[in-house]
This record gives sequence, structure tokens and C-alpha cells, in this order.
Amino acid sequence: MPLKPMQRCLPETFSDWIDRQVMRLAARSVSLLEATGRVLAEDATSAIDLPDRPTAVNDGYAVRAADTVGASDYSPLPLRLISGRGPVVPGTTCLIRSGDSLPPGTDAVLPLELTEQLGSVVQAAGAVPSGSGVYPKGDECQAGETLLTAGRPLRPQDVARLALAGFAQVPVRERPSVRVILAGRYRQDADGPMLMGLIRRDGGEAQGPEIAGTRALLEQAIAAPGADLILVAGATGPDDGEIAPHVLASLGDLVHHGVAVRPGDTAGLGHVGRTPVVLLPGAPLACLFIYDLFVARLLRRWAGRNGPWPYAEGRMPLARKVASSIGCLELCRVRIREGRAEPLAVVDGRLRTAVEADGFVLIPAQSEGYDADTEVSVYLYDRLT
Amino acid sequence: MPLKPMQRCLPETFSDWIDRQVMRLAARSVSLLEATGRVLAEDATSAIDLPDRPTAVNDGYAVRAADTVGASDYSPLPLRLISGRGPVVPGTTCLIRSGDSLPPGTDAVLPLELTEQLGSVVQAAGAVPSGSGVYPKGDECQAGETLLTAGRPLRPQDVARLALAGFAQVPVRERPSVRVILAGRYRQDADGPMLMGLIRRDGGEAQGPEIAGTRALLEQAIAAPGADLILVAGATGPDDGEIAPHVLASLGDLVHHGVAVRPGDTAGLGHVGRTPVVLLPGAPLACLFIYDLFVARLLRRWAGRNGPWPYAEGRMPLARKVASSIGCLELCRVRIREGRAEPLAVVDGRLRTAVEADGFVLIPAQSEGYDADTEVSVYLYDRLT
Repeated sequence: MPLKPMQRCLPETFSDWIDRQVMRLAARSVSLLEATGRVLAEDATSAIDLPDRPTAVNDGYAVRAADTVGASDYSPLPLRLISGRGPVVPGTTCLIRSGDSLPPGTDAVLPLELTEQLGSVVQAAGAVPSGSGVYPKGDECQAGETLLTAGRPLRPQDVARLALAGFAQVPVRERPSVRVILAGRYRQDADGPMLMGLIRRDGGEAQGPEIAGTRALLEQAIAAPGADLILVAGATGPDDGEIAPHVLASLGDLVHHGVAVRPGDTAGLGHVGRTPVVLLPGAPLACLFIYDLFVARLLRRWAGRNGPWPYAEGRMPLARKVASSIGCLELCRVRIREGRAEPLAVVDGRLRTAVEADGFVLIPAQSEGYDADTEVSVYLYDRLT
Repeated sequence: MPLKPMQRCLPETFSDWIDRQVMRLAARSVSLLEATGRVLAEDATSAIDLPDRPTAVNDGYAVRAADTVGASDYSPLPLRLISGRGPVVPGTTCLIRSGDSLPPGTDAVLPLELTEQLGSVVQAAGAVPSGSGVYPKGDECQAGETLLTAGRPLRPQDVARLALAGFAQVPVRERPSVRVILAGRYRQDADGPMLMGLIRRDGGEAQGPEIAGTRALLEQAIAAPGADLILVAGATGPDDGEIAPHVLASLGDLVHHGVAVRPGDTAGLGHVGRTPVVLLPGAPLACLFIYDLFVARLLRRWAGRNGPWPYAEGRMPLARKVASSIGCLELCRVRIREGRAEPLAVVDGRLRTAVEADGFVLIPAQSEGYDADTEVSVYLYDRLT
């Protein structure tokens, strides 16, 4: 079946298609010991008040705050020390340890440094207001409170908060299974190891890479069941006879082939059965850019994360003018020096420019570039320090 | 043996001690498929030129650039098409595919869109300079070139660069083995799962957590061999009888106990044999802060990473005044709203404040706080989008 000639879509057309690929990843319960970095599958709600009653912040004497009014260094007030935990009637006090609940009748903790104990008498050398030195009931969390919302990537302190609220396990989203197939005429395969790292970064479970050096092997690799998403790297352009788009069109549905993005304009999108397939150009820099633009977006959406970009974003001025041609969304790799983004490369297709870069700036299709000192958004590659 | 009373060191004293704990992590060869995120153990040097000779960027006609001088749409110049790959003598050309090396005699590639082929004659409808459409030898990397330097945390594109240069395996630093021991009077253990996530984030291999509820168990857990670093959480302060510092002093060497940092002033440092031991306060927020200040610094140094902080840093103005007491380095948790850092909490010891925060500001011991609009450094917790 002849393929219709490649027509370069707008990048927005690709993004819109990506955003329509709905996938409800199953939830799975994992131990809190393994939970950092996973995405919470459901809102986590506290079943308890923590603390469950007013509790001493530090060691001290549990008192009625009213009994300390007027106490000072110069005129300490005596309180009778009772043993055990009360009841504490007016004019008495008892020793309390950090984390203990306040005995009935008390509403504050007098710190040790404001007291002097002489036998069974404690001299209060300062006044404390009601609630002083006390964690009120529910101070850390309250029964019924939403601790964290579904879709949150769990940070170490989030996991600790769940632990405090009594969770031992937590429901997280399953990782989507992503098959990587290499279809190009590879001398040295750089896309395989790169895609493994990218997929893991974005929360996917990477399968492969499978090397499909012939059309028959490529058909087999694409048609095999068991993946939530299929990535084919290479053989997207005329130089390789557009084998990957041909195979996708024959086995399933090639929805788009070609996108007004540079590098990477031979990328494609489609389905085999209900499984989305993204065709990535084989040149490593183009493969990386198309992955970041569209595949990262898809995996992040599936994981329930909110932003489309796998990179932190910063605003900063350009150190130099950067020129670009009209008609394509372009990838301008930049280095950051003294708070300014120094353009390294736009047209240059060498992977080394992305290795040397700290991040990149996108130049929209309708722009001819930016003047020096223009404030731009920089997407930051992973930190090197 | 009685312990000398806790004397709060300067945080710099703790950092200096941390920086003196030298550990040369062994190198280990891993497949590039597993290399993203690992730290390169040795400089990676290319053994090859890539490409190894001048190579066509795209499909086209290999030409002598001199033969195209004066060619244009209006006055195309004819070149005789030869089959195969040359030799290309003046006035002739041959078809070349992307990635092919240039035939002898040629120095440029005429793109297909600048040509028309009529039988055995190719009409050149434009001039190209020497080197046009050609990757020169060694353009992506050169034999003997340092591709990446030791200590670099490998990004996906770095791994691709190594693959292009012919690497299949790469030497990375072993992960230090970090034992986590819980020594406090835990109702709900929040420190264990939190420390597991923190240690993995900073490139360590977390062991545990081991629950050591008695002094005897704590002694056993600290004395056991097989860890590169030991973290004990809890039982550092007077509320717990300072059991952890006592045990460390009896089994090994308690070098410092107490640091002018809030929260976390009961932290300690020392050794058992030659293994460094860090005593972390049990309160989760203090545990997190002391970990980030000192343990992350240690693990990052061991991994050969350059900066002491596990967080990206941004400069921004404070949205509100923040007050602080003199004498302690303090942790001010902040939320970022519209490019400004909004202080959430300084004294407040609740873990929830770190969950709600986007990052934190450090207030030095000698500072009473900052006025609104002061430009401050914000350390950014992991992104939530």
C-alpha cells in the first residue's frame, strides 16, 4: 500500500493527539519504604488525629496556665509537685516528658529552664499562656483530613507524613510498560540506552531495546502484545525508505507522519490495536527532542502528573541573539552562565550540543528568533552538580 | 561512662567534619542500558573519530563544490551522473545517502531539492560551498577527546554520546551502603521510610530500617560490620536519655554532639571503627533537615558530585518579612507564589510544613531574619508537577 506523502503537522496537532491517548493505570499498593518517587493513585486521608490529645512539646512541668500568672525570676510562684499524672488541681503540677499527653486539668507546659525544684515544691520563675509548650490535638493531622492528593509524586517528607498518619502501605500508580524498538540502520545504537533512561525518568517500565533490522522483524516487534506504549526509533524518513511509517500503516493506523519541528520532522504517531505507537527519528538529537516533546508528555499524563515537561523551567535573559527560520518549532540548546542563557546551537544536529547544554529554549514556528537580552523560558536538563 | 554535656557546635564544624570523611567508592562496570543516573567513575575518552571520514548529512548528490559555482534556478549547470561511488572527476556527480561517506574527489552534497535529474544528467539549480551538507571527520567526537569527565551524573543524552563513541559498558561509582537504625521511642516510624527515599535519591544503597528499641539492640546494630555509613535516627536528646550518643561514645568515638541548627540541635557525629556515624534527631522535620544539611552532603561528595545540596537553588524575593532568633541556623520553609518566596514556618516543628512547602530558605545564626522583598536563595524540594 503506497503511503501518502509526509505532510508536516503543527506540533500542536501532535500534542493534541497525545493528550487524547487515555490510559488509566492500575493502582498498586507498595510499602512506604519503596514509595518515594512513585505517584499517589488515590487521595490519602487521615483516619486519626495526631496527636490524639494535647501533647507536651518538650520535657517540663504540666501546669494550669492560670497558676503561673505573675510568676517571674524575681517573684517565683510555688507549685506543689505531685507524683504520677495527676489529677492536677489548682496550685499543683507534675513532671511531663516530651510527647506525653497533658494530664487532666493542665493546659500548658512550663519549660524546665523556667523552674527550680526544691523537694516537693516547684518554683515557677515565669508565666506561660494557655497552650504554651503544647501540641494541640490534631496539630500534625486531623481525622478526615486529606494528607496528599492523587497524582502527587511522593517526596521523602510526604512518605513520612503518611507514616505519621499510620499508613504502612500506600496505593501508587502502576508504571506503564513501554516497548523500545530500534528500526534504523544503526552503526552504533545510541537511541536504545538513551530511551531506557528517559522512560525510567518519566515513570515508565522500559522493555527492550529490541533490534528490528528488517521489515519482518519490525512487524513482529510492533505487533507483539503486552505493551502500554510502543516507541520505534529510526527508519522514519526517506533516507530509510520510511519503513517504520509503512509498517505502522500496514499493521494498524498511521495517524500523523511528519511534524513542523526541528530536529525531528519525520516523527510519526498512530496505533496498533489500541496501543499508541510513536515513531521517533533515529538521529539521537532528534530522537531526544521528539521524546521530550511528546512521549514525556504522554507518560507524565498517564502517571497523573500535571505539567507536560520533564524539566524544571526558569526565566532568564538570552546572552546573545539567536536566529531561527520560520515554519518550524526549533530546539535551541543553551548553556547557563551568570544567570544568562547562552545559545549553543539551533540548526546543528550533533548530539554533543545536548551533552554540553544545561537546557534548551524553544523557538516557536512563527518566530525568526530572539534578540539578545530577551527574557526566555529555559527548560533545564538534569543538574550536573 | 558519663557523657560530657552537649555543647552546640557551629554548623560549619559539622560540615568540616563531614568533608573530612573520605571514601573512595569502587568503580563498577555497568551496561549503558542501566547507566542513566549513575555517576561516571573515570573520564570517558573516545577511541574513534565519529564520523571516521566526511559523511553526507542528508540524501543528495556528492559534488565538487567548485563545479556548482554560478549555478542557479535560472541557469542550472549540468553534471554527468555516474553510477556507484566514483571516482567523481570534474563535471560529474553521484547519488549519496544520508550517513554515507563522501566519494573521493567530492567535498559537498547538493540537496535533492536543488537538482533535477534528466536521464544521466543532473541539473544543479544552485551553488553549494565546500563542506556544505557534510559532517566533517570527527564532528561528533574525535579520537582521544574526553567525552565526559569523572564524577558526572549521567543524563540520557550523555549515555547516548558514550554509545555513539562505541561504549557498551561504562565504569560508574559503586553506591555506598547506608545502614538506617531507628533508636527512638517511636509510635509511628516516619523516619525509616523517609530516610530510605532520601538515601536512594542521593545515590546510596539503603539498608534497613532496623528497629533498635533497647540499648542492647542499638549497640548490636551500630557495631555490626558491612556499612559504609551508619545513620541512627532518634534518642539523641535529653528526652530519650541521649541513648544514641551514649552508645556511640561507648562503642567508638562521639566526636560532636549538638549543633546550633534549628530544628535538629541534638544531632551528633562520630565513628565506629572507621565507619562514620551520624546521629539524627527523631522528630521527622529535624531528621529531614539534619539529613539534608550533612548526610546529603556526605553522600554527594562520595559520589563525586560537586555541589553540597541535593536541591536546585533559585534566587527570589521574600513575599513577607521573616523573623528568626540569633544563635541558630534556622530552616524557614517557603511556598513559591508568582516568583516570590512566601515564608510558611520557622519555629513550627510540624512535618506538615515541609510537605506543604516548595522549598526552604536558610537563616544564618547571626541573622535576625529578613525583611520583605529581600532577595534570598531558595532550595527547591522535588517538583510536584
